[in-house]
Amino acid sequence: MKNNPLELLMNPKSIAIVGAGNNPMKMGAIQALSIIKDGFPGKFYPVHPNEKEVFGYKAYPSAFDLPETPDLVMFVLPAPLIVQVLEDFGKIGTKRAIVITAGFGEIGRAGKELEEQLKETARRYGIRFLGPNCMGIVNSDLPLNVTVTPLIGPPGYLGMASQSGTYITQTLPYLKQRGIRFSKAVSVGNEGDIDITDALEYLGGDEQTRAIALYIEGLKDGGRFLEIARRITPYKPVLAQYVGGSAAGARAGSSHTGAMAGPDYLYDGLFKQAGIMRVESVEELYSQGWVLAAQPRLKGRRIAVLTNSGGPGTAMAHVCNEGGLEVPAFSNQLQAEVKKHLPAQGSFANPVDLTFNIDANVLSKTLPELIMKSGEVDGLLIHGVMGSGFLKAIYPHLVDLVGEKDPEVFAAQFIGDLEEPLSLPRKYGLPMVLSSFFGREDIFTAAYQDHDIPVFYGPEKAARGMLALHRYNLIRERPAHDPAVIPIRSEEAVRIIEEALGNGQQVLDEYSSKKVLAAYGVPVSEESLARSAEEAVLAANSIGYPLVLKGCSPQIAHKTGRGLIYLDLQGEDDVRRAYGAVVDAAGQDIPVLVSKMIKGEREVMAGMVRQAGFGPCVLFGLGGIFAEALSDNTFRLAPLSKADAIEMIGGIRAAGVFEAFRGLPQADKNALGEILQVVGCLGLLHPEIAEIDLNPIIINGSDPVVVDALMIMRNNTLEV
Amino acid sequence: MKNNPLELLMNPKSIAIVGAGNNPMKMGAIQALSIIKDGFPGKFYPVHPNEKEVFGYKAYPSAFDLPETPDLVMFVLPAPLIVQVLEDFGKIGTKRAIVITAGFGEIGRAGKELEEQLKETARRYGIRFLGPNCMGIVNSDLPLNVTVTPLIGPPGYLGMASQSGTYITQTLPYLKQRGIRFSKAVSVGNEGDIDITDALEYLGGDEQTRAIALYIEGLKDGGRFLEIARRITPYKPVLAQYVGGSAAGARAGSSHTGAMAGPDYLYDGLFKQAGIMRVESVEELYSQGWVLAAQPRLKGRRIAVLTNSGGPGTAMAHVCNEGGLEVPAFSNQLQAEVKKHLPAQGSFANPVDLTFNIDANVLSKTLPELIMKSGEVDGLLIHGVMGSGFLKAIYPHLVDLVGEKDPEVFAAQFIGDLEEPLSLPRKYGLPMVLSSFFGREDIFTAAYQDHDIPVFYGPEKAARGMLALHRYNLIRERPAHDPAVIPIRSEEAVRIIEEALGNGQQVLDEYSSKKVLAAYGVPVSEESLARSAEEAVLAANSIGYPLVLKGCSPQIAHKTGRGLIYLDLQGEDDVRRAYGAVVDAAGQDIPVLVSKMIKGEREVMAGMVRQAGFGPCVLFGLGGIFAEALSDNTFRLAPLSKADAIEMIGGIRAAGVFEAFRGLPQADKNALGEILQVVGCLGLLHPEIAEIDLNPIIINGSDPVVVDALMIMRNNTLEV
Repeated sequence: MKNNPLELLMNPKSIAIVGAGNNPMKMGAIQALSIIKDGFPGKFYPVHPNEKEVFGYKAYPSAFDLPETPDLVMFVLPAPLIVQVLEDFGKIGTKRAIVITAGFGEIGRAGKELEEQLKETARRYGIRFLGPNCMGIVNSDLPLNVTVTPLIGPPGYLGMASQSGTYITQTLPYLKQRGIRFSKAVSVGNEGDIDITDALEYLGGDEQTRAIALYIEGLKDGGRFLEIARRITPYKPVLAQYVGGSAAGARAGSSHTGAMAGPDYLYDGLFKQAGIMRVESVEELYSQGWVLAAQPRLKGRRIAVLTNSGGPGTAMAHVCNEGGLEVPAFSNQLQAEVKKHLPAQGSFANPVDLTFNIDANVLSKTLPELIMKSGEVDGLLIHGVMGSGFLKAIYPHLVDLVGEKDPEVFAAQFIGDLEEPLSLPRKYGLPMVLSSFFGREDIFTAAYQDHDIPVFYGPEKAARGMLALHRYNLIRERPAHDPAVIPIRSEEAVRIIEEALGNGQQVLDEYSSKKVLAAYGVPVSEESLARSAEEAVLAANSIGYPLVLKGCSPQIAHKTGRGLIYLDLQGEDDVRRAYGAVVDAAGQDIPVLVSKMIKGEREVMAGMVRQAGFGPCVLFGLGGIFAEALSDNTFRLAPLSKADAIEMIGGIRAAGVFEAFRGLPQADKNALGEILQVVGCLGLLHPEIAEIDLNPIIINGSDPVVVDALMIMRNNTLEV
Repeated sequence: MKNNPLELLMNPKSIAIVGAGNNPMKMGAIQALSIIKDGFPGKFYPVHPNEKEVFGYKAYPSAFDLPETPDLVMFVLPAPLIVQVLEDFGKIGTKRAIVITAGFGEIGRAGKELEEQLKETARRYGIRFLGPNCMGIVNSDLPLNVTVTPLIGPPGYLGMASQSGTYITQTLPYLKQRGIRFSKAVSVGNEGDIDITDALEYLGGDEQTRAIALYIEGLKDGGRFLEIARRITPYKPVLAQYVGGSAAGARAGSSHTGAMAGPDYLYDGLFKQAGIMRVESVEELYSQGWVLAAQPRLKGRRIAVLTNSGGPGTAMAHVCNEGGLEVPAFSNQLQAEVKKHLPAQGSFANPVDLTFNIDANVLSKTLPELIMKSGEVDGLLIHGVMGSGFLKAIYPHLVDLVGEKDPEVFAAQFIGDLEEPLSLPRKYGLPMVLSSFFGREDIFTAAYQDHDIPVFYGPEKAARGMLALHRYNLIRERPAHDPAVIPIRSEEAVRIIEEALGNGQQVLDEYSSKKVLAAYGVPVSEESLARSAEEAVLAANSIGYPLVLKGCSPQIAHKTGRGLIYLDLQGEDDVRRAYGAVVDAAGQDIPVLVSKMIKGEREVMAGMVRQAGFGPCVLFGLGGIFAEALSDNTFRLAPLSKADAIEMIGGIRAAGVFEAFRGLPQADKNALGEILQVVGCLGLLHPEIAEIDLNPIIINGSDPVVVDALMIMRNNTLEV
């Protein structure tokens, strides 16, 4: 990742800041203080037209007065002034910049022009920049913090890239209270140059970063994001939150970052294809990301649940089971050993319930070690280790009685050993996640968190953290991604499409659409176009019964319910009657398609749509009557690898129907997968096709056959 | 609710506690301190064999030495001693008790015997009791707190009943930090007498309680719970978490409370039927419960989203839209007014984004009032009102510069008006929910929370709180519950069932099952049983073609794939051939069912199962090939009211197929609902039937027709 523009930007030896004065309640000054106070080990140069010093550092009137060329320059001054100053830094040879200032692309036309000037100037001098309209970066390792909020605590392991600056600044105290620590964090702002995909790539290659969290409102280039992400996810977990899909979400997001938001299902498909774990809140992004970053991998599915209370134990077991983890009963031997440490009313089978007690040693040390040693589980969930938190909570009632006037001192007498509990996950190589209703005011909560053992405030959250480890295992176990093979463009397909365009058609009719599909090896129903009853009978006798007759013309996109389709015709008489009926219903002399009737109880659909920034995308879902009602479908970006296609087929809720059941054979998923691959490639090879709709594809025995098809043409044949 | 046993138990004028000494680090003593220190206004009597005084209160050696008969006695002494002492209190006339002590039903046989003795003694003296193995009660209004954790803050509005004591004790400091306050809370423990349904009923009638939260691991009597709950939910929101469905969950839960856990889908159906809002974590139980308890109702779906950051705004809009709320663009006029208060880079259309700033007045006061006044929205979501929290966070970087050495004093200078922001929801009658990444260390967070305006630590949580108001509106808008009408038992049905039992049959065959259904007016396929080819042809000609022939015998439960079913027969020859084939395949001389072939693309299924504690339950779902793969179905307890049945039909994911679409007419939901009602009543009227399976029911045109049916008999005909 040596060529990633963030490599230098995140690790400068010297920083100039333009726009910071000595008023500590102003932006710029607050950020300068973050650089100074949070321990940046390099050189710091304030640039200011009037001030001689800024917070004790010598200030320089301009770039040209600096004693050296800084690696990085940061701008916190009014937008219209920035381009000129950037040019100055370009002239002295600075190659990286952060533009904090807002008022560019996100405010409309004038801002967009300004942003273009910024980009053009940067390009001219080979400057790569972050922003504008961003909150900067955090590198906890260097350390370097240029945000408005102080960095707290030692370096962490969770890398974050965000299209909202809030999630790397306003949240720093929130994260501190939850024991979550960034390795590196990047606010990408308007993405005038460096974008969230660059940040993902950088974090993927960063050794300090063990898991990556992304907050996304829209991507400019879905294909590039996919390519980068799927290189990273096999060895480093990536989580993402996407919130841009709704109308209001898009309104908020695009005004905020200027990025294009697309429909939710598209991002959902993209994340699945990339092996990214999608989450539904920023809390999950942080907390699940932190478990993945801080804890060892789960080596199996067996979880022990230890608590001082039945409720949280039951809740944690419930979440585990819902998510695919097991909470197996311990062996008789282990149960007997556990039982020794419990009161009579305790539970010892797993979940283990000590019942309410004040001594935390059994729950924090004795039992976890016993269970880890046993080899019977792959991970531990613990709720209720509490010491000073509870004692301080009850202290107001005791203060007159216990003789000790300092609640901290009072609480400290009851705290047992801390060192051993903290060493357990590392000693046994097993992940451990805790839940507590006491925050960092509790000495155990603080100690666990400070030793990289996650403590979350709620049993379900702890259990979901453990599930994140399991989810990531499923991603690592995916078949390796084989690069997609794109076939050679079919001359036959080109001819059909060009002819249709030449005729001024907006669509390819069913017959032509299927010819195009067949040209790429897609199995379609055997059929022939007839222009008279005699031709229809001739075709019928050649194809064989039962048959279907349908009106077929570019003017007819939807045939159902209009008297244009006749199923299950058994002989010549049927064919003649149906032919007459179609022609009558169409009210004109239209061609009639004579097709072999394909039978099968399982119907699916496939399609292609184009989305700005994503190119052609492939849709796969349940077909037939339930398609609309259930919208059980999934999307991927083209081209699809074989693994992509197979994963799509297994990814709909009804995927079970493709197995052998109820007397039906297993569906040929490879054949179905090849259809999906072709659909994607059609989008790539034939930019004239705007949309493809194959519905239904009937599974005939084991074999998928395309029974109806439609392709919509574009007037504008430019690639999106 | 005057007869509810908790009425007196929660509001005693005098309490005796047995088992509390003067060691403040022991259970019993800690609880006595909660009674004393948290302001219980009545009389308090420690009962102790040796101590003369407990925490300054005169102690009495036994019940008989007390100066008066206490309304309530609480036991915190070893389990084997309790029964005798309870008897003493029975003799002096005490009518309510709380048994904190564990070691009863939950520890096995010996404990169960002890619990039976406890119950028997209580019954003998007319004592109603809570527990054993519980954590007591909280009545914030009286006030009375008998738990181990101090009660903090003024009386609240959220009522809670829990099968885990933790959720009303360990969580009190957690709730304080989140500004959530109980009205009343009840830990029901083993439910030896008073159970969670009693607690629900009590909270339903309690004026102080404005919303009810239930934590449930298992119900002993689902029908009674349903009856009580659906009386309450039309006027007071009830939320529930259920975690007992998995194997490990059941193991944890039953060892904990001794309650019966049942499958998750059953509780899911029960909650839907009762109008209870199910949640998936204890955090949601508290936080969504608190919004429902503390905020006015939503009068529509339009939500304004105000933030100081694009990310949280987009996330809140996303959650709203996913959950059925709207975030509509403001009118041009309102946008223009909002815009006046924003910087150039702000967004003003809704979501409103002020962008990052330190002055909280615009976000807390100016804009909310402007928007509330406009009448353009029904509720407000706000993220990012922050004052002292942020200032204290950055204070370490500023301390040398600002000259003020106390961070609280430093922060206080920048805080604007608080009074107006706090009065807005009440002034305009609109609900308002906030999100902040700063906790109660921030003066705004604390002030909002202390004035019943929820502040949650995450934008998605705030938005989900608003969604809870919307969800409750949907429950209030449900058609009124019309009591179910149970038909008179059909003599014909009794005869068929008795005959089958007389023959030693384990099942009713298809023909007999349909006769039973028909006896209650359920539409079944027209059919006749034939014992020879000639009989079959005769029946066929009388019924009319097309037809289906099936082998029909109590020995044949599943016909598919075994050569026992022949569809779409068009004439006598077909019938003869099919008859021969069925008899050949069956390898014996079995009766053959000649049925009218029912056509229809929409297939559903219905059924009846019995569950201990729940009686007969009705299942409804998608039928046909997708039934297994999608398990798109829903359960309810019998008997079903008409509204229950209609709600079931609308409650599956594929419910859209029942509307008119793709040339199909709307399905007759009333007729389908009547089938479901009959299925439930069959379970009530005929205890000999263990299970019913109607699959498929085909929607023929508009009309549902039962095409296949099976009823399984019970050996044991006792009612569950």
